Amino acid sequence: MIAEIIAAGSEMLTPYRQDTNSLFLTEALNDLGVQVAFKTIVGDNIDHLTGAARIALSRADIVLFSGGLGPTEDDLTREAAAAALGVPLLRSDALLAGLAQRFAARNIPMSPNNAKQADVLQGATILDNKNGSASGQYLDTTLFHSDAPSVRRIVILLPGPPRELKPLFSEQVVPLLAASLPPRFLAKRMLRMALIPESLVDARTAPIYTQYPDVETTILAGSAEIQLHFLAAADTLPAAQARVDELSSRVEAEMVDAIYSSHGESLEEIVLLNLGVRNLTLAVAESCTGGLFAERLTAIPNSSRNFLGGATVYTTELKTLFAGVPKETIDSKGSVSPEVATALAEGIRQRTGASIGIGITGLAGPSGGAPGPDEHRPVGLVYLALATATGTEVKEIQLTGDRDRIRFWASQHALEFIRRGLLL
Amino acid sequence: MIAEIIAAGSEMLTPYRQDTNSLFLTEALNDLGVQVAFKTIVGDNIDHLTGAARIALSRADIVLFSGGLGPTEDDLTREAAAAALGVPLLRSDALLAGLAQRFAARNIPMSPNNAKQADVLQGATILDNKNGSASGQYLDTTLFHSDAPSVRRIVILLPGPPRELKPLFSEQVVPLLAASLPPRFLAKRMLRMALIPESLVDARTAPIYTQYPDVETTILAGSAEIQLHFLAAADTLPAAQARVDELSSRVEAEMVDAIYSSHGESLEEIVLLNLGVRNLTLAVAESCTGGLFAERLTAIPNSSRNFLGGATVYTTELKTLFAGVPKETIDSKGSVSPEVATALAEGIRQRTGASIGIGITGLAGPSGGAPGPDEHRPVGLVYLALATATGTEVKEIQLTGDRDRIRFWASQHALEFIRRGLLL
Repeated sequence: MIAEIIAAGSEMLTPYRQDTNSLFLTEALNDLGVQVAFKTIVGDNIDHLTGAARIALSRADIVLFSGGLGPTEDDLTREAAAAALGVPLLRSDALLAGLAQRFAARNIPMSPNNAKQADVLQGATILDNKNGSASGQYLDTTLFHSDAPSVRRIVILLPGPPRELKPLFSEQVVPLLAASLPPRFLAKRMLRMALIPESLVDARTAPIYTQYPDVETTILAGSAEIQLHFLAAADTLPAAQARVDELSSRVEAEMVDAIYSSHGESLEEIVLLNLGVRNLTLAVAESCTGGLFAERLTAIPNSSRNFLGGATVYTTELKTLFAGVPKETIDSKGSVSPEVATALAEGIRQRTGASIGIGITGLAGPSGGAPGPDEHRPVGLVYLALATATGTEVKEIQLTGDRDRIRFWASQHALEFIRRGLLL
Repeated sequence: MIAEIIAAGSEMLTPYRQDTNSLFLTEALNDLGVQVAFKTIVGDNIDHLTGAARIALSRADIVLFSGGLGPTEDDLTREAAAAALGVPLLRSDALLAGLAQRFAARNIPMSPNNAKQADVLQGATILDNKNGSASGQYLDTTLFHSDAPSVRRIVILLPGPPRELKPLFSEQVVPLLAASLPPRFLAKRMLRMALIPESLVDARTAPIYTQYPDVETTILAGSAEIQLHFLAAADTLPAAQARVDELSSRVEAEMVDAIYSSHGESLEEIVLLNLGVRNLTLAVAESCTGGLFAERLTAIPNSSRNFLGGATVYTTELKTLFAGVPKETIDSKGSVSPEVATALAEGIRQRTGASIGIGITGLAGPSGGAPGPDEHRPVGLVYLALATATGTEVKEIQLTGDRDRIRFWASQHALEFIRRGLLL
């Protein structure tokens, strides 16, 4: 069975807005064993939308529409689906009463337009929308086509706003589809690696994962990381799980030097988890990352248990004030130097009383270093220092790309530096 | 003239990847007066892709393909476009020589597969790709259709990677299209407002912008901000500019209490600009935003001229250590209190010597306040304090949503607090 998703709405044909529902729908459909073969984005135009619906019905078994179920003249999905299917829309008394009640509860008059939200494709099941006035619809039908006497199609109309579409789909559409499709038991795993090129991950893991043709392996390059996704379907859940686990553990053994997470956790979560189990605390003095390192850790709930905070020391004075970096060191070695990174890490550790201090200094660009020792240092040069009770380790890295990329990669290197330090 | 964009690539039919080129292409096409009426996303399947190409040629004047121009078996855009158009692919000797040279320069053997990258639609112009091996193609042709004896179509093949597609399109396709289309002079403006609901912006500005039917007005809700985009086309650039400027100045007069930027600058840029012209410096002591406030400012190049940095003071001890907040104040009033916000702002200002100090403390959730005075304070409660030479102002805000949203909105309120303070 293959599916097509039609996203209806002129705003998705502007430079400003994009269909995002289809990512959620694709994952849910894949879990049911349905592949998405086409996605079409079409504006609020009855001819365009009806044409797109006809095309979708001709080439996909399951056709999902998102959007265009509101009460305005621009909301045309019901009409287009009815025309393409050749079935009438019937006004539902129950839906009409529900709409009237909804307006009465809010003390606003219901305009005649709104009644069209009670129109239902003949034979369709109504899908209740807890978060909005647009009901969904589900129609499993046998169509008459010239090229095939009897073609089964499943047509699903969904409201556009993600907070309406998602619960409605998960709670009502998934059970209906699952009942119509062969049972399927799925197991999934995600392995994550930082700071390694995708091509190298592929070269090292392909000899393993190609031995598991029944497990779907996807390699994705994220922000300064590579993700390996494994997905297996089988007749029972334990059978699917066994295949994924076997492949996963062989890949983990091969990539043990690079993998930071074997069940999908983020690098921030893994660092906090490792600090937590060792009962350690962390503080940062960051220059070129300008708060990004702290921001990434504090985005995780309860990070305050192990991350104390730190200082964003953009100027020479603040490096001295908050991390006690000697002014002479900065003057003689430059801000972007192993000596300043070391002083930042040791200074912030000592002042905050954290178990671990990390210092980050570098040139994020676009302009180069200040006059003095930093003047001829290249954009993208970053020094990291990790200070613990047993000493301080320094790392020099040279990054490429624009300011955002250099800052993010520097924060990623810093997190990975800590994670590896904690393994020892 | 209407356009359809076909994005080819099975990865865009997974839950992980999305077509993003179409946003860039849509903006560039709109600037030329071309509306995008359909977007189709299709996998690396010759039947699906050829079918999608045929459909696009039947309903759009301009058909743009992105992706599928690589050397592998999965790269099928050339073949599909040729089949749908009914024109042959001809191998270009010049392209073939260029590919051979490219491989030779890198000292890697060219596999026979790669030769297909030299195949060109008969009659097409080759578009040179400076950033990759996949050339683009541009074909302006007259097709023979059963329903219309002679239909003009423009077919454009573009490489998938954005860093290849974007310069190739801007430098080579835009001039070709502009030469085929009526001349058009465009003027644009963007006004930005923070912390105001979209419905209120619309209610206040609709009576004005509806008087300018020749100016296209788009209201967009961004992250804790609203953007008003104006676009006018006219026979001359000054005429288009005059219409946009007139509407824009009337809307600015109406929304003067809310607009922070009248030419599209970000709130961070405006705050830094205002600090710069007044020769002022800023430092932050932030708790619930955890580095996000500093990160947003330091993301702007040269922010270090006016933003000194600051401290992420997640724990009680760090609030005292870096901003001198008296422990007794925290114990008696709680961390999330106007008193602690005030002490953070005043303390960081005094210690760093900045002209302005900002203090941010709040409950970002998901869990509530610590035992003690914060215990019954609601998630989303945030106190901001702004300390200057003339005194300290405190603001209480109550935010809703999840941790990420609360943190971002708190940082937005803090930036807006500073911007408004600088206006006085």
